[in-house]
Amino acid sequence: MTERSCLSIILAAGEGTRMKSATPKVLHKIAGLPMLAHVAKAARHAGGGDLSMVIGYGADKLRQAISDLAVDAETFVQEQRLGTAHAVLAARSAIKRGYDDILVMFGDTPLIEAEALMAARAKLAQGAAVVVMGFRTDNPSGYGRLIEQGGELVAIREDKDCSEEERRINFCNSGLMAIAGRHALEMLDRIGNANAKGEYYLTDVVEIAQKAGLKVVATEASFENALGINNRAELAQAEAIWQKRARRRMMLAGVTLIAPETVFFSYDTEIGPETIVEPNVWFGPGVKVAEGANIHAFCHLEGASVGPGADVGPFARLRPGADLKEKAKVGNFCEVKKATVEAGAKVNHLTYIGDARIGAGANIGAGTITCNYDGYSKFFTDIGAGAFIGSNSALVAPVTIGDGAYVASGSVITENVPDDSLAFGRARQKTLPERARILRTQRAKAAKK
Amino acid sequence: MTERSCLSIILAAGEGTRMKSATPKVLHKIAGLPMLAHVAKAARHAGGGDLSMVIGYGADKLRQAISDLAVDAETFVQEQRLGTAHAVLAARSAIKRGYDDILVMFGDTPLIEAEALMAARAKLAQGAAVVVMGFRTDNPSGYGRLIEQGGELVAIREDKDCSEEERRINFCNSGLMAIAGRHALEMLDRIGNANAKGEYYLTDVVEIAQKAGLKVVATEASFENALGINNRAELAQAEAIWQKRARRRMMLAGVTLIAPETVFFSYDTEIGPETIVEPNVWFGPGVKVAEGANIHAFCHLEGASVGPGADVGPFARLRPGADLKEKAKVGNFCEVKKATVEAGAKVNHLTYIGDARIGAGANIGAGTITCNYDGYSKFFTDIGAGAFIGSNSALVAPVTIGDGAYVASGSVITENVPDDSLAFGRARQKTLPERARILRTQRAKAAKK
Amino acid sequence: MTERSCLSIILAAGEGTRMKSATPKVLHKIAGLPMLAHVAKAARHAGGGDLSMVIGYGADKLRQAISDLAVDAETFVQEQRLGTAHAVLAARSAIKRGYDDILVMFGDTPLIEAEALMAARAKLAQGAAVVVMGFRTDNPSGYGRLIEQGGELVAIREDKDCSEEERRINFCNSGLMAIAGRHALEMLDRIGNANAKGEYYLTDVVEIAQKAGLKVVATEASFENALGINNRAELAQAEAIWQKRARRRMMLAGVTLIAPETVFFSYDTEIGPETIVEPNVWFGPGVKVAEGANIHAFCHLEGASVGPGADVGPFARLRPGADLKEKAKVGNFCEVKKATVEAGAKVNHLTYIGDARIGAGANIGAGTITCNYDGYSKFFTDIGAGAFIGSNSALVAPVTIGDGAYVASGSVITENVPDDSLAFGRARQKTLPERARILRTQRAKAAKK
Repeated sequence: MTERSCLSIILAAGEGTRMKSATPKVLHKIAGLPMLAHVAKAARHAGGGDLSMVIGYGADKLRQAISDLAVDAETFVQEQRLGTAHAVLAARSAIKRGYDDILVMFGDTPLIEAEALMAARAKLAQGAAVVVMGFRTDNPSGYGRLIEQGGELVAIREDKDCSEEERRINFCNSGLMAIAGRHALEMLDRIGNANAKGEYYLTDVVEIAQKAGLKVVATEASFENALGINNRAELAQAEAIWQKRARRRMMLAGVTLIAPETVFFSYDTEIGPETIVEPNVWFGPGVKVAEGANIHAFCHLEGASVGPGADVGPFARLRPGADLKEKAKVGNFCEVKKATVEAGAKVNHLTYIGDARIGAGANIGAGTITCNYDGYSKFFTDIGAGAFIGSNSALVAPVTIGDGAYVASGSVITENVPDDSLAFGRARQKTLPERARILRTQRAKAAKK
Repeated sequence: MTERSCLSIILAAGEGTRMKSATPKVLHKIAGLPMLAHVAKAARHAGGGDLSMVIGYGADKLRQAISDLAVDAETFVQEQRLGTAHAVLAARSAIKRGYDDILVMFGDTPLIEAEALMAARAKLAQGAAVVVMGFRTDNPSGYGRLIEQGGELVAIREDKDCSEEERRINFCNSGLMAIAGRHALEMLDRIGNANAKGEYYLTDVVEIAQKAGLKVVATEASFENALGINNRAELAQAEAIWQKRARRRMMLAGVTLIAPETVFFSYDTEIGPETIVEPNVWFGPGVKVAEGANIHAFCHLEGASVGPGADVGPFARLRPGADLKEKAKVGNFCEVKKATVEAGAKVNHLTYIGDARIGAGANIGAGTITCNYDGYSKFFTDIGAGAFIGSNSALVAPVTIGDGAYVASGSVITENVPDDSLAFGRARQKTLPERARILRTQRAKAAKK
Repeated sequence: MTERSCLSIILAAGEGTRMKSATPKVLHKIAGLPMLAHVAKAARHAGGGDLSMVIGYGADKLRQAISDLAVDAETFVQEQRLGTAHAVLAARSAIKRGYDDILVMFGDTPLIEAEALMAARAKLAQGAAVVVMGFRTDNPSGYGRLIEQGGELVAIREDKDCSEEERRINFCNSGLMAIAGRHALEMLDRIGNANAKGEYYLTDVVEIAQKAGLKVVATEASFENALGINNRAELAQAEAIWQKRARRRMMLAGVTLIAPETVFFSYDTEIGPETIVEPNVWFGPGVKVAEGANIHAFCHLEGASVGPGADVGPFARLRPGADLKEKAKVGNFCEVKKATVEAGAKVNHLTYIGDARIGAGANIGAGTITCNYDGYSKFFTDIGAGAFIGSNSALVAPVTIGDGAYVASGSVITENVPDDSLAFGRARQKTLPERARILRTQRAKAAKK
């Protein structure tokens, strides 16, 4: 397959008004990644060669997004939107360069799989000029039906034009196509717009190919491959299917998900085997979890790395740059941002760690805050190996706590603490006997008045 | 429709023993609102005119609830519970006032929709004397079947009395009825109790109307409209249906719900378009979210207002009276209660804000606590625009922090801080070199003994 | 039934390679309890008498687990794994002791119910020599079919050996069996291994019994009873079924679960009626909740006791040894571990309570931390009845706060506070007018450079 050159054209010019959004439809996300990027990824995995994106509505936002996402794609603007064939021809100059295979995909069918695209390309390699991707459904009503005869695709019949018999066909048109490059332009240019809407429909290529004596076939893919997103309810439906696939893949690879339906992955989440994930965990983009970790319930991770055997949560938030090494522990109501928690270090309760390093085996008491921001800049807190930070301490950065140092509970630490030193930063206690009783009496009297 | 006068009678006298509850069944909640109030709301939306509630079990609790909920309804006590017709006649004095339409509903069918009631009333307007609301189901067994002929309802046949053919009818009786007011009392008074249980059944009105030569018809509504709640499993089922409806409505209106099945709304939740809600968010009663906000995962909101572009969570709790203005931010492990967070102000980490105002653009450091309660009363904390509160500070209310003021980290602030002033309230640090090492050695020795 | 003696044999020798785990398959957990223990529990509830476990892979880990779980069972090691009959015969010495009934179960079918086992035993009591447990399914393909005639089981036909007609039979073999003890050894010893894999199959006992003129019958149980777990996706599926059963049971007993699908119980969770559980709550092992409590959304409980009318969460974590008495309250971002919160005491916000007692009616301010650990040992904090702990205080254990004592906000308390005394432990505030403005100006200048 790799010997055949390929051009992948992704149609992404539509407005998507039913999304009710200022964001172009194809930039809405599934698993943290814009739909458009999912399609591009499938194309790349299918060896889709060069990538052309036909854009229109929100072209600037799309160009920006394509650049932000580092998708290597040429963009073509479809100024007027006159149908799918018209859209494909916006990429005429790319097509003209000459490719063996041309794949036509839609930016709003984010669940398209590389396997389905490869199956379509395989049929081109076997001599077909046009390959139409179809799917089977128990409710074909409304879809164009794929009418096959003798292994070839005879026609794509619109629902309204179907005979009674054809109406019972459950093999439907997804809209996705693979076209032999050497015939592509010639066929596409022959598509006319003599129809009710005056649009140029890509599906007409089927008839044109047949008339030219070229072979047209269908290829079957699952329904999800063809799922087009038109509103936010459908977006959620696609997200759900994506998540279900990802959860199953994770579980079969040796990750325990106690309640898979409550765990949400991003497109790039990586989790090692023997890791246990309790219910209600959110993996935002950029998370890597090693083998044998425990991710307890109610955790929120993003851009974080969790080492082997590390223990996270419940109720932990790991933000970008959190880097937990082997057997490190971040517990409940703790937030860690841009900070390394070295092997075996513990950040167990109600703590904020930002812009910091926690040395191996250090113990950070409950309620500790690294005061990393002074209102103007961010500063670093460095805590040495085996250090002990007493509960409810504030570490005012920039500050270094040495190896084996000890900070007494309730301290505000503003100066460096050398290795093995003990630091206090708290007031002496004063106790006034009977004063609470007096206060209470006064209050009670005041209330009576 | 509005020209026709209407009396809505809601039957709510039953005990609901299978709920196993000291709370009367119809006061159990769906989406934060008692079932009874859902039914009253549907009646009102259907232009249901005057509202009569027939109560019995737990009458005092019901009267109290009706008053608390500010439902404008007359109540009638059904002392003995002798069947549905007997219950309706408890509202005899209301019926006597004379109405064009009478709607009979049940307090334990909380998913009844105004549209279904309006459809029934429309049939009265077209001349029917009795309209029975039916629903279709694949499992009709156990339900009374609606037997129609020539567009009229011929009979409601109890399951056990059905012929083989009738048993296959899947159009079932919901129990809900619309009755022409001018015939109502006459018909209801003719219902007898010559049956096994000695009860007066409202369904008998069908036969009575027919004998009187009056028109009886059925109207079809979805199954949910007729879903009666008898135990807490069914309560949860109704809640699930309600939530599904609400989620879909939100998404189609332009709200992104990444995992709709994990987001819970209350009966009065309002969310603006382009707002993104991550998984696992709980909207208790009284929440309004403006356009373009971000509600991150694991948030709990109640009685709160979230301004346009504001950012909430993850792990944020907004309690009643929390009022976040434009682009305000309340982050993880933060609780906000009775407090305004003005435009662009940030309350990002592990903070308690109660009875307070945070001025525009102010920055509240991690671990800040407004000490609003002295054990006797609550006091106010006022933080000025652009103020900076260093991490782990305690602000002892009543206290005012001026505009542009700066509170050093780890301070306890008990006195007002004027505009642009700097305040400290923390002890000086003392560092004892080598003391941590000595402590460690002593400990190790002690452990050996 | 109880008069008949019984031996329950649980086969648990397999490796379970598809789990991709170093933990033997049957030790993977459902609802916090290893699968093996679920099966043992069902056997015990069915009056399963003596318990024999046939182990092999990971025998040491299994023995350890059986001991840790205090399951009263004899273990037999199946050195070579030569089929199910071979496995059963590993317990030969137990069988030899002579039992009326022998139950053969699998360690990886965790949803087996005592009722199903009792039904099988009942058939032995009625004279059957072999009882095969079957289940019905719409997709029988792949399963062995149970072929019955005249109330007896004629054969277990492997899918591949089925006739067209037999293939349509939807009554399938679960593998579980009950065998009359007095015939057991004789029959089992006759099972041969003249088959493709050279294994000894327990199913062959059917034919052997028939040839011996003994009665063989089938008993029907639900599909779940037979659900065997082979990978982590199936493990999650079994967990889901278990949870669904538990939720329903709870709801019917009078517990309100607003969104049952988001609440997770452990095998031993107990909840009293009239308790309301909001969405997203995790009950780990060892939790008891009394009547009329409120468990708000996003709570994580483990080894904790919650008294009548107590109020927990949202966002609360109760760890082992947390003991909330009547109407106690533990609120958001609070962690309680090994601590009693007495009647009516309040721990409402961002607090860590560990190794402590909070007296009745005491109020613990936001951000309070019990500093229970000094890096070497854990110490106790005792807070008296009616005490008031001001916000953001650190209580350095061991320490006693007397009844009615008052701790000022922001204090670090290192010495005992007698009853009714007032204690401070905080620095005096210093305020430097205009200094924040100067700082700001300096910063702005610095930024320009």
